[in-house]
Amino acid sequence: MAEGILIVLSGPSGVGKGTVGKVLAAEKEDMFFSISMTTRPPRVGEEDGSSYFFVGEEQFIRKIEENSFLEWARVYGHYYGTPRDKVLNSLKSGVDVLLEIDTQGAKMIKNNFPQGVFVFLVPTSLKELKHRITGRGTESPEKVQERFTAASLEIIEAKEYDYLVVNDFPERAAQEILHIIRAEQLKVKRNNNIIEILRGDGCIQCP
Amino acid sequence: MAEGILIVLSGPSGVGKGTVGKVLAAEKEDMFFSISMTTRPPRVGEEDGSSYFFVGEEQFIRKIEENSFLEWARVYGHYYGTPRDKVLNSLKSGVDVLLEIDTQGAKMIKNNFPQGVFVFLVPTSLKELKHRITGRGTESPEKVQERFTAASLEIIEAKEYDYLVVNDFPERAAQEILHIIRAEQLKVKRNNNIIEILRGDGCIQCP
Repeated sequence: MAEGILIVLSGPSGVGKGTVGKVLAAEKEDMFFSISMTTRPPRVGEEDGSSYFFVGEEQFIRKIEENSFLEWARVYGHYYGTPRDKVLNSLKSGVDVLLEIDTQGAKMIKNNFPQGVFVFLVPTSLKELKHRITGRGTESPEKVQERFTAASLEIIEAKEYDYLVVNDFPERAAQEILHIIRAEQLKVKRNNNIIEILRGDGCIQCP
Repeated sequence: MAEGILIVLSGPSGVGKGTVGKVLAAEKEDMFFSISMTTRPPRVGEEDGSSYFFVGEEQFIRKIEENSFLEWARVYGHYYGTPRDKVLNSLKSGVDVLLEIDTQGAKMIKNNFPQGVFVFLVPTSLKELKHRITGRGTESPEKVQERFTAASLEIIEAKEYDYLVVNDFPERAAQEILHIIRAEQLKVKRNNNIIEILRGDGCIQCP
């Protein structure tokens, strides 16, 4: 059986990775949607195990020591990490995995797992991005400005990714990513078994 | 403006490249479907300018001398070639081009135009392929056997391509290729202009 594909969805802070990820997870139920762990406090409306697993700093550090993360990072004073086992086990059993992750984490994944498919989400404009960051209403004007400056710089990192998707509407962006996933599944390198089956006089999708 | 994408659709003799190509051309009208030129006589039902441009050997050889082909080959005693200008002009003006072509021609295109997207179509089984080659009813048993043996060998060439599509039904195969085309359009390398626009405080898909 072919391994699953690791799809890494990243992009600047505030671009809407979480929303697009959720639409995608709903559209493609045979995919495992990896939930990150974090020490940052939940925002209004965020439930444990939906956006993130929320844990204390002591617990997070213990997990780092146990090597339980595929990647982890400290961003704006909080820890974020991707639990390793569920991701690797899903891939091994042929299940595609979606990882929605900040650019710092994506960079670490790319180092450790270059065979992943790296998708960079961009806003329609920086103005729109600022609007989105401000609109959250959860942070001080200084934090908003800090986050926006960082986000503008993060856009340059797109060049390290495989695919670029404009997030004008989350539903449309999710559709684009579905095209990407299907195309990646059709890559010859992931289907050498089909060539072998045909050459061995076997049959693909037989009735 | 970004250049168009050259999609090269190939696969073993008899796999149904022509049918899939036609479905695809009908589904995606903004794409230029390149028609090959050949000196082989039309099969029953084949019209000039639809499946092929049918020309005489003298005319074909003159065009070779004029360097009018992107690639050309002599297969089973007949000449086949891809007119160069229309393909290159379409790509330059941002139009995607579909080239439905035998594996020998695809190899020449890959040498001259490696930035193309190479899709290999396979049958569900060799038995099915033989059935299709026989079913044409246009060739002698010896020709059928010769064609089938060549086709079985051609399947190995899939490994040189980017994508593998199983032609169980032409409509489904065409849908798969549409996913591939969309994904290729989203490749970062084809969208550096978007990154520049955003960094220059511009706007993508603005109202």
